[in-house]
Amino acid sequence: MTTPVSMLYRSTIITPDDVREVDEQVAIETPFTVMLNEEEIGSSMVLPVDLEEFGAGFLFGRGYLSSPEELVEVWVCDDGRISVFADVAEIKARDVIITSGCGGTGAIPRDMLEGTLTPPLDYSISFAEIKPFIRQALHASPLGHRTHCVHGCGLWADGELQVFFEDVGRHNAVDKMLGAILLGRAPARAAVFTTGRLTSDMVLKCARMRIPILISRTAPSSLGIAIAARAGLTLVAYAKPERLNVFCGAERIVRDSK
Amino acid sequence: MTTPVSMLYRSTIITPDDVREVDEQVAIETPFTVMLNEEEIGSSMVLPVDLEEFGAGFLFGRGYLSSPEELVEVWVCDDGRISVFADVAEIKARDVIITSGCGGTGAIPRDMLEGTLTPPLDYSISFAEIKPFIRQALHASPLGHRTHCVHGCGLWADGELQVFFEDVGRHNAVDKMLGAILLGRAPARAAVFTTGRLTSDMVLKCARMRIPILISRTAPSSLGIAIAARAGLTLVAYAKPERLNVFCGAERIVRDSK
Repeated sequence: MTTPVSMLYRSTIITPDDVREVDEQVAIETPFTVMLNEEEIGSSMVLPVDLEEFGAGFLFGRGYLSSPEELVEVWVCDDGRISVFADVAEIKARDVIITSGCGGTGAIPRDMLEGTLTPPLDYSISFAEIKPFIRQALHASPLGHRTHCVHGCGLWADGELQVFFEDVGRHNAVDKMLGAILLGRAPARAAVFTTGRLTSDMVLKCARMRIPILISRTAPSSLGIAIAARAGLTLVAYAKPERLNVFCGAERIVRDSK
Repeated sequence: MTTPVSMLYRSTIITPDDVREVDEQVAIETPFTVMLNEEEIGSSMVLPVDLEEFGAGFLFGRGYLSSPEELVEVWVCDDGRISVFADVAEIKARDVIITSGCGGTGAIPRDMLEGTLTPPLDYSISFAEIKPFIRQALHASPLGHRTHCVHGCGLWADGELQVFFEDVGRHNAVDKMLGAILLGRAPARAAVFTTGRLTSDMVLKCARMRIPILISRTAPSSLGIAIAARAGLTLVAYAKPERLNVFCGAERIVRDSK
């Protein structure tokens, strides 16, 4: 049980009156590929502990395994593979419905995780805008307050909240925002606020859209930070109207009123 | 904008001293299939609003679209399809990594969403056990408190917390618990606690394992409740050590000390 599951990241706390550096503990995301009887079934980002359990449970959840009796052995390999051996008659591809908790694109095309990214669009934001943005985004979701089961995603540009979307999945809410940009209903030269965590896929798809500033009410993961750093994107976590915790790209946060 | 996105469900508040009925607002999950140039790309559970944006953003996130210029038109059809038309040269299947926010099995094999389910195993739990179970599960995750980026899943049986798992994804944490059952390291005749929301896939995979009682710190979705009701599973939301909000199967919650 000595696998590290979190690491320290240096981040910058910015308020209207102060800037200081802090160290934050960040959870580690690592990709693992699950094999069944030497056939590759799928890959997933995982907190790298309890991987035997993860490999078996992953296959059960997707319907490849149905009972403990079928399971023969699980090997966790150093190369990022979890090899499950089981007494199952045949391995057939399943027609799956991606679920709401996870959302439309809780998945990263593998080639995009390592490809080069075009730098973000030119944009910066001051507290004169950050304060109303975060306040409006947090209050834009009556459904969230009623059901406790939806995430929100808002986009701010030209001094106002341009669009706001909700979904049962945090990925879906971000997808709706990206769709609005694709449909010409919102600009990409903007700051985006999400109520969800900043994991790898959330950051990557915003980086691919060249969105310069991504702000979350809550935490980032290790890989989310790594992708933001690679893309040159401003990544803000634990955001409050008067307090930002900036993990990358602090230069786009302007303390003086513009 | 008259599509319903939430509905009222009758649930039962159970405390050590009282039982009463309440109505709760629950967010609606609906499956939609996204098509690109008449080819089926994937299906997702969605909060049924802003579906044009969702269809376009879903395809962008998975790498099928890369810019607004490619997008021609989006139609939302009554039959649960979102048809996107775009100027893209070829549509090729992508090798995807399922991401941590979403987890190993944030996906439901389509045939399982409607198949019959074996009834849950015989089990009930009293507040004498519920109180230590929820308290221990909430305190079992130092990583969660340090990083704010992980979900936990614990399993209680025979008067104690048998296993507890953490992951960046709520689905992954549940998969690890299911894997422990498959590996013979925990019994299925048990109560399970998750810090994550009770959406369709979370409930379905526990129902398939015949787990009788599923408890969450937070909210259920409409489809999560529907699957629990179909499976005969006890579904508890917004759980606190001395207050449960039971959406299905209240008979397995015993008020008297056993």
